Amino acid sequence: MKKKVDSWFGYMGQVLRVDLTHRKCRVEPLQKELVENFIGGRGFGAKILWDEIPAGIDPLSPENKLVISTGPLTGTKVQSASRWVAQFKSPLTGIYCRSVGGGYFGAELKFAGYDMVIVEGKAERPVYVWIDDDKVEFKNATKVWGMNTLAARDFLLEETEKGARAIIVGPAGENLVKVAAIVTDDSRTAARGGPGAVMGSKNLKAIVVKGSKKPVIYNEEALGEAVKEQIQAYRQWSHFKDFHELGTDHAVYLWYTFGHFPPYNFQQRELAGVERFRPEVLASYVVGHKGCYGCMVRCGKVFKVTKGPYAGIAWEFPELETHWSFGGILGNCNIESIIAANMLCDLYGLDTISTGVAIAFATELYEKGIIGKSETDGLELKWGDAEVMLEMVKRIALRMGNMGNLLAEGTKRAAEIIGRGAEKYAMHIKGLEMPAYDPRAMKGQGLGLATGTIGGSHAISWNKFEILGVPKKVDPFIVEGKAELAKYVQDEMAACETAVFCKLTVNHNMTNPNFYSKVLYSATGIEEFKDPKYLWLVGERIWNLERAFDVREGIERKHDTVPVRLLKEAMPRAPAKGQIFELDKLLKDYYRVRGWDERGSPTKKKLVELGLVEVAGELEKKALPT
Amino acid sequence: MKKKVDSWFGYMGQVLRVDLTHRKCRVEPLQKELVENFIGGRGFGAKILWDEIPAGIDPLSPENKLVISTGPLTGTKVQSASRWVAQFKSPLTGIYCRSVGGGYFGAELKFAGYDMVIVEGKAERPVYVWIDDDKVEFKNATKVWGMNTLAARDFLLEETEKGARAIIVGPAGENLVKVAAIVTDDSRTAARGGPGAVMGSKNLKAIVVKGSKKPVIYNEEALGEAVKEQIQAYRQWSHFKDFHELGTDHAVYLWYTFGHFPPYNFQQRELAGVERFRPEVLASYVVGHKGCYGCMVRCGKVFKVTKGPYAGIAWEFPELETHWSFGGILGNCNIESIIAANMLCDLYGLDTISTGVAIAFATELYEKGIIGKSETDGLELKWGDAEVMLEMVKRIALRMGNMGNLLAEGTKRAAEIIGRGAEKYAMHIKGLEMPAYDPRAMKGQGLGLATGTIGGSHAISWNKFEILGVPKKVDPFIVEGKAELAKYVQDEMAACETAVFCKLTVNHNMTNPNFYSKVLYSATGIEEFKDPKYLWLVGERIWNLERAFDVREGIERKHDTVPVRLLKEAMPRAPAKGQIFELDKLLKDYYRVRGWDERGSPTKKKLVELGLVEVAGELEKKALPT
Repeated sequence: MKKKVDSWFGYMGQVLRVDLTHRKCRVEPLQKELVENFIGGRGFGAKILWDEIPAGIDPLSPENKLVISTGPLTGTKVQSASRWVAQFKSPLTGIYCRSVGGGYFGAELKFAGYDMVIVEGKAERPVYVWIDDDKVEFKNATKVWGMNTLAARDFLLEETEKGARAIIVGPAGENLVKVAAIVTDDSRTAARGGPGAVMGSKNLKAIVVKGSKKPVIYNEEALGEAVKEQIQAYRQWSHFKDFHELGTDHAVYLWYTFGHFPPYNFQQRELAGVERFRPEVLASYVVGHKGCYGCMVRCGKVFKVTKGPYAGIAWEFPELETHWSFGGILGNCNIESIIAANMLCDLYGLDTISTGVAIAFATELYEKGIIGKSETDGLELKWGDAEVMLEMVKRIALRMGNMGNLLAEGTKRAAEIIGRGAEKYAMHIKGLEMPAYDPRAMKGQGLGLATGTIGGSHAISWNKFEILGVPKKVDPFIVEGKAELAKYVQDEMAACETAVFCKLTVNHNMTNPNFYSKVLYSATGIEEFKDPKYLWLVGERIWNLERAFDVREGIERKHDTVPVRLLKEAMPRAPAKGQIFELDKLLKDYYRVRGWDERGSPTKKKLVELGLVEVAGELEKKALPT
Repeated sequence: MKKKVDSWFGYMGQVLRVDLTHRKCRVEPLQKELVENFIGGRGFGAKILWDEIPAGIDPLSPENKLVISTGPLTGTKVQSASRWVAQFKSPLTGIYCRSVGGGYFGAELKFAGYDMVIVEGKAERPVYVWIDDDKVEFKNATKVWGMNTLAARDFLLEETEKGARAIIVGPAGENLVKVAAIVTDDSRTAARGGPGAVMGSKNLKAIVVKGSKKPVIYNEEALGEAVKEQIQAYRQWSHFKDFHELGTDHAVYLWYTFGHFPPYNFQQRELAGVERFRPEVLASYVVGHKGCYGCMVRCGKVFKVTKGPYAGIAWEFPELETHWSFGGILGNCNIESIIAANMLCDLYGLDTISTGVAIAFATELYEKGIIGKSETDGLELKWGDAEVMLEMVKRIALRMGNMGNLLAEGTKRAAEIIGRGAEKYAMHIKGLEMPAYDPRAMKGQGLGLATGTIGGSHAISWNKFEILGVPKKVDPFIVEGKAELAKYVQDEMAACETAVFCKLTVNHNMTNPNFYSKVLYSATGIEEFKDPKYLWLVGERIWNLERAFDVREGIERKHDTVPVRLLKEAMPRAPAKGQIFELDKLLKDYYRVRGWDERGSPTKKKLVELGLVEVAGELEKKALPT
């Protein structure tokens, strides 16, 4: 870890630090040590957050920072490696958060000459940052403040440059809605954990970027060869066609048959009308295919609505998760309304998962009689009522009425405010609303959710062993050995999200440290990166650093859990009928496998082994009671 | 009129005839006689319609034609002269219709080499026409069929060329909604009379065009001089700032004080909350300024909504008429909702005037107890209920429910179907919903509306004498001499809309035959055009030809009227309190001044004097009973 990085092959070598309070920008050299130890993307952000965000700060205060990072392969010809990462202390969960976005923004940021942007402070008045290669300007955003993301985009690109790329917040972010997303010019989102609210709290409407540079590659020929192989492998990939034709949506119905896609706020009654989520039905809505920079998969599908009250909409797009969060979990099989809800979320700048889960929470409270019309501003919250669902999306984004304002705080906080046992129906983990996976149906996946460093995220702990049977098939109901698998997928994803590789390709084992090391070395020429083992180590290092951040914020064993319903109520439907989630056994194994203590803290030994000596020191000093 | 046109200065010299039935396009030479007699734009279309659309055809049948035309000044440096005209037999009124749109489409069409496009027949399946200079293609529109205009635009420009320009129909046009508009890529519309339904009936989703040519100017220097003077005059124009800063909306409140902007479906009770329409309030919503090709006025305003349930919208824009049709006439002073309604109309492709007036009609029927909830699909139609208004816009566009489907037929037809005296509350003239003018408050303006060749249109008969006092001030309540004024403004507008000049500049006398002849001659070199008197003659010729078309379709004296309410109920509010509309006297004068007979038919003498000999022959033969 002490070797020199000889040149900035693969990287641009610059970090842009944006101080909103003083309206100053500073270009800092990219530190070799940071590169060697953390590679890029998610690794960079985890390190910056650990170093620069003291424990206990208010995530919506100027003290919070927003790190937007790219990786050494961003903007290169490597396929599926050009996403960008937003990292921040989450206003939704109060802990570490990483949220990844797609489209073309990441590549463009790199082309402008920056591997990373660190946004800090708070602007006095609404601003946006216009990065035009070396020229960086703070621009007045008063005009676009209040606009939805699409309207704002058109204004911003008009005011800067037509082909520029942007990340933008909508009214939800401005309104400090805790589940607010960042949305790109092409309607991709970094949504989880409330990054939109962080931008909103900083009076930052958008970052617009245009670049004319390219990363210099260490060994173009070797990289070219590897990419050729990658493309070849894509062509032989058994799921390539699925993703190419229907994106993540090819799996919606399959998920339901696995016992996921949990209907009725995880009550898991059979979902009437679930046939509408079959791939052939969903495919009938698709009229277009969109992708990210440098990715032949083009998994973004444009859905067209031609019937019912939402006719006229064409939007990219509800993903699997969104079909659930505005579909299954709400007992709603009206696809048209799900597309409409997805569109509203993108326009307002909302996380579709968290928004849908929050509405499901309120719907179950209403069903159970815990809340009534006086608390819902007259709305009758019913399973499968599409109009009410869309109305609630709007109310959350705009903080309209009692219930809109309440759910805008996120499910966990809303449950705390409501009291009366509402927490039982709040389907979150560490404050982050759960995704379309039921821990009872797949134990390794459940363990990943329970221990996720950002809370209940499928993305960072996706158990490909259980779900796809890759790299090898395992029984989803078995508890034994699942800690190892959870660690495996967590570390692997952490490593790959430094590239920044797309999680889909990691999930399907198209990207893994073996392949990654090859392209990474070809691009950067950094010796350590040649060794897949080193990438695994970096992955584990990142995961532990993220956990250390959380521990420093007060996270411990009791937070590594899932909603109580999943621990106590047996799964009512096949194939996981009768299953509960065996948290204690799984967690015990997990801490052992991770080398953490019984409170869930990384041990000094583990941290030192991972090269995180200072982290060990600080954790000892600050987080661990004597 | 017999002189040769020596060259195609100012014109491109080509007409594109698009036969959708046989998927064939033919380029026809622009006829010199057509140019000499009808100049361009509205004149061209009036002549084509007269020649090619036999009486009695169904406007939604393949027999109808859609003429899209430009003028000799389109795409030149002359200011405010690049609009485009859509002409067709109206499915709403069953008579002649002309509808004018702005933006950049007209100039682009001309740059592609065409002065006019004549669309005929009906495509078997949804298509769009892609005009790329000389290359014209029929392209499959199955994908974009069903999409709102904005979504469709993005698809179409992706599939053709990014900088291309387009006219598009939305779901309303596809659904053959009789008040459906054509919408441009930049959200301008040719809206009146249902041109969107004509395109829909032809399975024509859009015309997309990209051009690289320019009209050759006869005398560049002279034209340059004239345009310099024009720009100078604009700068000194007392209303330039008004239009530049607030578009037509600077006049909204003023109109109300004139006795126009008739509230509550022309019941003309005082409008509670009308102060919200004051210019300074409206200006507070404006965040952007847009314009048409070659126009420094940039009267298009982008309105931003930052509060209430429609927050997040930024849209160009409700004009004066729309503030009325979704505002005053509905007793609605919620500006935010008017912006939202305007946006919905543009997305669905609806005429904002007709849509709002149709909803006002239904609202008054509901108020009077003529219809009830069983006929409104459960909706309670109330004055000033913004949510219900927006719901009705959607239902009309999508033909949802009984009332949506009924109003989609237009107010006149809906009243006929409802019966029970509903016609009394149907504020249309010859089937075209009325604009924000009350004939009782300005008699010349009323006469213009009553005699409009397309029905109740403010645009083609705008009485600048009464409203602005230009070219000279006259008392609006006086009946005497108003026939002459009505003829004056009608002929002048007809002449100027051949350029195609923007009506705003004609209304304000910034454009008139004196100025027009100067630039027209400089651009074309056609001797006749030098003489303003000739332009007046052409204007009168066009008006009479349009009237002849209507007469051939059965229009006669009894149709030259206004809703009975305006003839019998005295105006209840100042400044026109106590006034009624004195139709008989006005009409008698008008026919005399026009040289028409007592049935409202142009006489043979008049037609021959105007050079419309064949028209006289056909009218004698077909339309006039012996």
